Amino acid sequence: MNVQAYMAQVGRQAREASRAVAAATTGDKNRALLAVADALQASRAELMAANAEDLQQGRENGLDAALLDRLEITPASFEGMLEGLRQVAALPDPCGAITDMSYRPSGIQVGKMRVPLGVVGIIYESRPNVTIDAASLCLKSGNATILRGGSEAFRSNQAIARCIARGLAEAGLPETAVQIIETTDRAAVGELITMPEFVDVIVPRGGKGLIERISRDARVPVIKHLDGICHVYIDDKADLEKAFEIAINAKTHRYGVCNAMETLLVHAGVAEAILPRLAVAYGEKGVELRGCERTRAIIAAAVATEEDWATEYLAPVLSIRVVEDMAQAMDHIARYSSGHTESIVTEDYTRARRFLAQVDSSSVMVNASTRFADGFEYGLGAEIGISTDKIHARGPVGLEGLTSQKYVVFGDGHIRT
Amino acid sequence: MNVQAYMAQVGRQAREASRAVAAATTGDKNRALLAVADALQASRAELMAANAEDLQQGRENGLDAALLDRLEITPASFEGMLEGLRQVAALPDPCGAITDMSYRPSGIQVGKMRVPLGVVGIIYESRPNVTIDAASLCLKSGNATILRGGSEAFRSNQAIARCIARGLAEAGLPETAVQIIETTDRAAVGELITMPEFVDVIVPRGGKGLIERISRDARVPVIKHLDGICHVYIDDKADLEKAFEIAINAKTHRYGVCNAMETLLVHAGVAEAILPRLAVAYGEKGVELRGCERTRAIIAAAVATEEDWATEYLAPVLSIRVVEDMAQAMDHIARYSSGHTESIVTEDYTRARRFLAQVDSSSVMVNASTRFADGFEYGLGAEIGISTDKIHARGPVGLEGLTSQKYVVFGDGHIRT
Repeated sequence: MNVQAYMAQVGRQAREASRAVAAATTGDKNRALLAVADALQASRAELMAANAEDLQQGRENGLDAALLDRLEITPASFEGMLEGLRQVAALPDPCGAITDMSYRPSGIQVGKMRVPLGVVGIIYESRPNVTIDAASLCLKSGNATILRGGSEAFRSNQAIARCIARGLAEAGLPETAVQIIETTDRAAVGELITMPEFVDVIVPRGGKGLIERISRDARVPVIKHLDGICHVYIDDKADLEKAFEIAINAKTHRYGVCNAMETLLVHAGVAEAILPRLAVAYGEKGVELRGCERTRAIIAAAVATEEDWATEYLAPVLSIRVVEDMAQAMDHIARYSSGHTESIVTEDYTRARRFLAQVDSSSVMVNASTRFADGFEYGLGAEIGISTDKIHARGPVGLEGLTSQKYVVFGDGHIRT
Repeated sequence: MNVQAYMAQVGRQAREASRAVAAATTGDKNRALLAVADALQASRAELMAANAEDLQQGRENGLDAALLDRLEITPASFEGMLEGLRQVAALPDPCGAITDMSYRPSGIQVGKMRVPLGVVGIIYESRPNVTIDAASLCLKSGNATILRGGSEAFRSNQAIARCIARGLAEAGLPETAVQIIETTDRAAVGELITMPEFVDVIVPRGGKGLIERISRDARVPVIKHLDGICHVYIDDKADLEKAFEIAINAKTHRYGVCNAMETLLVHAGVAEAILPRLAVAYGEKGVELRGCERTRAIIAAAVATEEDWATEYLAPVLSIRVVEDMAQAMDHIARYSSGHTESIVTEDYTRARRFLAQVDSSSVMVNASTRFADGFEYGLGAEIGISTDKIHARGPVGLEGLTSQKYVVFGDGHIRT
């Protein structure tokens, strides 16, 4: 069978299975999730052996250390998969919730019911644990899933797939409710993202290159996350103690994450009061500073270029700009932000209110570190990704982001006149 | 200036204006809407003259009667535009609403704020009143708009554009908040749907060909509505009086609308009791019937082919199928429905509940005519279209469908540890 025919078969099976998953009770879905955890535990040795083979192959193919690191299933990441399944089983089921039910003058009663999207396609790179994370969230939200992992994790993903199939079967759900693509042919991705008849939404997880390519070629809606160029703006009405703690935390808590601050904006009125102290602390942590002219008049920093303002460093590098007022900070954000997360530090009520309303990012914060932009921190339980798109779901995407709402209408023989 | 440069300029202006519209108060937006109504009224003669020129040109170009009919601004449709503006001004402003605010264990307070999408592109065909409908909904929901009407309505749309610009200026909003494309060059559409940097969503309104073309080529999300192949299923536990009224109303209230029933599914247990009576009533209304074998054993009807089940007639034609049970009805719907609207007629609690939960359409009804699937009937106030997509907005799309939600976080100097 060629790739096109194979993917069409996978798609058709997913579409069929999606009806069964959508109709499954919360109990069925939870039983399946726990059964997958049991199956993983029972197959631990087999899974670890498959992962060792992937790692061996990866080393032979000259994969770099970071990639091998992501590929490895450690005892901790194995426990993490089991714990994740149990946590998702414990989350409330979003499906079927009816809201906003009201009577209309015609006599009909109208409301909205939360329902699964249908078939979700997930395209990801080397981490095999994404297979479990993504499959569990899609299953709990009533969707069928097609997973396409990285070729370097092929054996690990296939071993996980067998455990998922066992769990589904035990709960009486079709094994095709979660399908892992059984070919490393890259053409499979091209097919997956151009089958709107079988796939309702694509969630790519990986580097910017992968996501840009998928967004460009997809004929199916994509829930995507490109850059995380996050800003903290320290207002002249800020409590400088809070500002210091937030500016340090947002940059240095972790460097390689999308919700880390990449640019610090400081009101001219407090720049001299706070920048020297921040520069010392960043220096101690080994953070390289790049600044505008006014910044460099106060502290030692390299010249920040136009490119710096538009860069997601994902590294111990920070660009700093001194601004005249909040309006200039908001202009800077409107121009350079990737729409992920921005935070203002201020004690001023009116400015906080204005910043919240007018900054157009998926998370907007007052007096909090950008590092809080995260599904667990927001109480979603888990996230399938963080969306920097504007339609459907913005910010951390959990179970609710994998559903939509349909209208339900109750009548008593009502007709339109 | 070539089309590409012109459209980039329009896009850039819209993106800039979107910040001002998003920041405008509810009062500003309402004042602008009412000022547009005043400007229309003051320019009535000029507008009617422009429309007469379009009509004259249309006749010379041999446009058919239906197209000329849609193109004409009648006294009634003129009043309709004024009334629409006043109604939209009277609707509640969806922007800024904060919901689901709660404290997290970390101490931060997290919620969601409803916000405009940004820039909405509307592509439509001959009706000039869509210019006002679309512009008013987009403005009230805080979005900047780029409108591309049919070339046959060019003069009418330009005259309306001048009134909109006057209204916006009077309320202190940028005139570029609503831009009507000033070229009939078809390449402008190609540009509009491939500028994700300037346009956040496209809403096409028109025939299926237009919408398919736009969906295929767009690099911007599209809120679209393809077919309306709507079903009514008459269960054997139906109240046959209600079933009769609903089946007649759903088909014959209006023929050319997307929420009209195209296929009637009848449980075998009541087919003989209800089909003859329905056949008489449909006959009196001039509705042509096409049926499956079992239908044709009971009433006179042409043979319904595979193609019939998959056709949106938009005409006095109805296909009828006798089914063995509700499961078969739901299988038929899953296979042939366009996901617009389906209704079950039954007095059975369990079946009503199951149909509601499991039928995957944008509106699912119990004991009501499919004709109710409409923004006004649902209380949205007005609709920009009906979405048969699954992500973002399903069913009638009103002000809320032109917005999304961002996360807002309140802290008191909180950092992540």
